[in-house]
Parts: sequence; structure tokens; C-alpha cells
Amino acid sequence: MMQALPGPYLLFLGDISEPSYAKTAFGLRDWAPERCVGELRCDGAGVTTGLAPMAPADAYAAGARSLVIGVANAGGHIPVSWMPSLLQAMEAGLDIVSGMHTRLADVAPLRDAAQRLGRRLIDVRQPPSGIPVGSGRRRSGKRLLTVGTDCALGKKYTALALARAFAARGIDADFRATGQTGILIAGGGVPMDAVVSDFAAGAAEMLSPDAAAGHWDVIEGQGSLFHPAYAGVSLALLHGSQPDVVVVCHQPGRERVLGHPDFALPTIEDTIALALQLGRRTNPAIRCGGVSLNTSHLDPTAALRLLDDERERLGCAVADPMRGGAAFERLVEDCLA
Amino acid sequence: MMQALPGPYLLFLGDISEPSYAKTAFGLRDWAPERCVGELRCDGAGVTTGLAPMAPADAYAAGARSLVIGVANAGGHIPVSWMPSLLQAMEAGLDIVSGMHTRLADVAPLRDAAQRLGRRLIDVRQPPSGIPVGSGRRRSGKRLLTVGTDCALGKKYTALALARAFAARGIDADFRATGQTGILIAGGGVPMDAVVSDFAAGAAEMLSPDAAAGHWDVIEGQGSLFHPAYAGVSLALLHGSQPDVVVVCHQPGRERVLGHPDFALPTIEDTIALALQLGRRTNPAIRCGGVSLNTSHLDPTAALRLLDDERERLGCAVADPMRGGAAFERLVEDCLA
Repeated sequence: MMQALPGPYLLFLGDISEPSYAKTAFGLRDWAPERCVGELRCDGAGVTTGLAPMAPADAYAAGARSLVIGVANAGGHIPVSWMPSLLQAMEAGLDIVSGMHTRLADVAPLRDAAQRLGRRLIDVRQPPSGIPVGSGRRRSGKRLLTVGTDCALGKKYTALALARAFAARGIDADFRATGQTGILIAGGGVPMDAVVSDFAAGAAEMLSPDAAAGHWDVIEGQGSLFHPAYAGVSLALLHGSQPDVVVVCHQPGRERVLGHPDFALPTIEDTIALALQLGRRTNPAIRCGGVSLNTSHLDPTAALRLLDDERERLGCAVADPMRGGAAFERLVEDCLA
Repeated sequence: MMQALPGPYLLFLGDISEPSYAKTAFGLRDWAPERCVGELRCDGAGVTTGLAPMAPADAYAAGARSLVIGVANAGGHIPVSWMPSLLQAMEAGLDIVSGMHTRLADVAPLRDAAQRLGRRLIDVRQPPSGIPVGSGRRRSGKRLLTVGTDCALGKKYTALALARAFAARGIDADFRATGQTGILIAGGGVPMDAVVSDFAAGAAEMLSPDAAAGHWDVIEGQGSLFHPAYAGVSLALLHGSQPDVVVVCHQPGRERVLGHPDFALPTIEDTIALALQLGRRTNPAIRCGGVSLNTSHLDPTAALRLLDDERERLGCAVADPMRGGAAFERLVEDCLA
């Protein structure tokens, strides 16, 4: 399905005001820029990708063939306020691509317009059929899983950057996508959070099958083992991935769980400890390869100082993959060690 | 839906030879005997409920109005070998009730026969619509969750027995079903393992809503936090249930995870410790009310001795709810303390 996605894309940002909900749009901008011609926002929306704003007709004229819903909200529903923009896009000739829980074809106005205009409604979050129950069987090849202190703080970017860095060193490596944005970037994967619970660990096993001894699967983490809504997904992914290496991802300064202000964020140390404790169940040799910090809110000097301080404090490699440099080189080396 | 289930039932055991897969049939026999007229097995099947064997036509003559598929297998699919029995039941006038993952209406021969004969195909495992994402918000009232060292060893029976014992003491208590058998017995509930992963904790929250301060929800546990396939479901249920009390359920002598012989069973102590460690995230006051042992394979003297020894060793109430007695009284008291 993914190979047939109609591109390039017009990125739709809806009317959100919280950048953390625009992971899909930012991910496509950063990791598949050649597939993005511009962005479309509802009136008054506060979040932008920095790409050129475009009306659907102009985007179509510039080559776009689909509008990608580049934002998510808790629960994954499509609000009524987005409908005029989506209908306008179909009128202009664009298909609609979505990674939300709600199936596009279940929204009557979209279904009707698609039928009338001959447009496609493509749900990236539809899991593949035939997912087995997890077996726990040890598989050949090597696996790395990114594990977070929370949602939306760098697990996908870290996995993408590590997979690229592994490949740059001549190592056979695949990025394995577990969420809608990753799937749009990678052209395949399993949308973990849409899998029925009983099959979630089996889906993770399916995503990183037996491979050559020297091959690495670099698997995009989901949620957090401490998250009051999503910890079950994270644990199923950890067990099914049976990673040899975890890299713990965190955003310095974030103190509360995103969208759940009553919940304090776990510390990096507690997150490492719990991932290793629980991950040992399916891979007794699991270890922590290091820590990835999202320092996008800091200036370069402050970021470098923080990475140094945290490496000292935690006693392991600490890097911001988006800044690269010696710290990231050390993280890559420690993961492969 | 559950109130309208056509009864009484003919219990179907398929062709299984492993009693642990017949939880639904045994549960209905033990907890809703007035709804069961007999059992039907495929030729050569080794497992029986002890109820009278009946051909579908005889069961219909005896009052049965549906055949309940009383067994499960890994993955929840309906094997071809069951088809003649199920078709025969529909010919005889019975509707089909199933708690398996496979939807009955997705099996072409069943769908066709149901249409031709005017029978109903009823899937108990269909989750309700409108399940929210978990919020983690603390709810009023008291909650108890049964937690297992493995699948299929007494979590449902323990919850049913505790709910009855609470009610017998004049305490306002509800058994909350999370699996197909429990739902058939209770007349309602949420089939946790069929819920999409992202909503699993939210489903558990929905199952045990705000209640009066003195009210107890006694929630049926699922899987095990150590299970290579189902730990994610167990963690979502633990977080969403936010139990005040957990009761750890175990079958003495079981040393390997059912169906996963490469995995050693966790100890009771490790299961208590992990349930409290992870459960604290949504209920900091969580405590262990005691241990429930399934001693059905022991004679009464050996069972009583084991319960005594384990109480001594573990330092908490240890009972077999199916044997009752002073040990069970103490477990009930310690849960309510």
C-alpha cells in the first residue's frame, strides 16, 4: 500500500495550537522533504512546518496529488472544523491520506465526496491482516528499540538517525516504523497502537523478523512504560521486539506527561531500569546503548553543555541525534559495541 | 446485548485435548449451571465438562436456544473441524454464541447458514463503541483486581468468589468481567483483549467507573505481566483499573507459561512485587490483599497443608476460593481491611 501512496503531499495542520500534536507533519518535512510541496492550515491555527502555505488548488498545480493529515489529537478523531479544508482538497483533485484512528471512509461527508469526485481515502493506520499472537521465540539478527520517558519527544527521529548512521558505517540496517508518520516516511511498517491488544506483541515480532546475524532492525518506540494510557502498547512492543539494545529518549525540561498533567515524568534512570527489567523477559541480554536528548529548545552551547553534564551524571553515551557531532558518534558506537 | 443472549445453552467443546483451553465451558458450568443443558464434543475429543452429552436436536428439545462455543485456542480462530457441529446446531434451531476473536459472520459457511435458517451469530468479544483513551484520573469507590502468574489458572473464579463473599457480608460489590466467559456469566463487561491497544487502559477505566465510597468493583484480571504475548493487555488493565487491592492468582506446580514452554513461570513474590511496582503509577496506595491458589489437582489434606505452608512462607492470606474455609475468610478480610 505504502509504495502506491499518491505524492507529493500537501501537509494539513488542522487547527491545532500544540506543536507536539504535529509529529506527522514535522516528520515528513524533516525526513521526506522531497515528498512535501507545502502546508495547509485552518484559519487561526498556530502551528506551522515552515513550508509554503498553499491552497489545495495551488498545491495541485505545484504537483501535489494527496493531502496528508499531518496532525493527531488524543483519541484520533477527525473534528468537524477540518471538514471544509478536506472537502476543498478533494474538490481540487487531491486524495486524502490519514494516520488517525478514525477511518476516513467512516466519515460520511468524506466518503460521499470521495465517491462523487473519484478520490481515494487512504488509512495508513490500518494494521495488516494475519498478525499472529506473540510466541516469544528468539529471532536471529540484532534489534534496537527506542524507549521514551513520554510520547512525542524524539523516539522516531532517534531511530531514523541511528538507522542512517548504521547504514553510513556500512552496516545492513532497517528502520522499522510503528506509527503513522514513520510508516509514511519508511513506506511500510505496523501501526502498533491500532493493533488489537491480544496481538500487539505478535505485531512487534512480525515487524522485525529473523535476519542475518549482522543485520540491525532499528525499531521506532511508542508511548512510555510509565504512561497512564499507553504503557500497555509500550510493553507489548518491548516484549515483541526483544531488543538487544534500548536507547532511552527524553526531552529535558519536560516534567509532566503530555496531556496528563497529574502525572510526573519518570526520570531517565528509572526509564532505563524499567525497560531493562521488563525487556529481560524476552531477551536476557538486553542492555542500554545510551540516551537521546531532544534539545531543540536550547541554543547550541547550552545543548552541548547539557549533553556533557548528562553523560557525566548517567555514565553512558548521551547525544541529540539532530545535532550529530562527537556525542552522537559515541552513541552510535556504544549501540553497536 | 448480554441480557438478550438466547438461553439456555448447549456447551460446545470442539476437539480440544487441553482442559486449560475450555475455560468458558467450565466457567459456565460452575457459575451459571441453570443456563447449561448439556455439552457437545467432536468425535474423539478428550475434554468434558461432565454435563450430559447431547446432540443439537436433543438439546433443542430440552430447551436449549443457543450453542455456546465453550473453548478457545491460541489466536482465537474457528477450525474447519468444528464446522459440521456448528452447522448441525443451526439446523437444529440453535443460535451460535462465540467469544473468539474471529467474528462468526466472517466465516462464510456460518454466515450463509445463518441467513438461510434465520439464526443469529452473536460475538461476545465485540468491544463496545466509544471507548476513550485512558485519562489516569482517580475515581471514587474501591477496586480489586486479580493478577496472575499466568493465563488460565483462576483469576476469573477468584474474582467471582470474592465478589460473592463481599456481597454475602452486605458490601455493595460488582464482578467486572474482562473476558468472554466472565461476560457470559455476568451479563456484561468489556472484552479487554479485543480492544485496540491505544484504548486498552481507557476500556479498563470505563469498566469500573466512579462509584460510592463503600462500593467495590472486583475486576477479572487477564494474562500476566510476565507473559510474552499478553503482558501489554495485563499492564493496560492494571493501569486503567487503578486497583486499591490486588490478589495474586497461581496454580501450584505450574512451572512454565501455558503454551510457551521456553518461559519459566514467575514466582508469586515476583508477581506481587511487579504488580505493586507498576500499579503504583495510577494508584499510589495499591496493596496486595493476599494470594489465591488453584489447588484443584490436590486432595483436601494436601491442599490445606499447602495453603498453610504458603501463608507462612509469604506472610499474607493464602486461600483457594473454590475450597472456601477459614483461609478464604481471612483472604476476604485482608482484602477489605
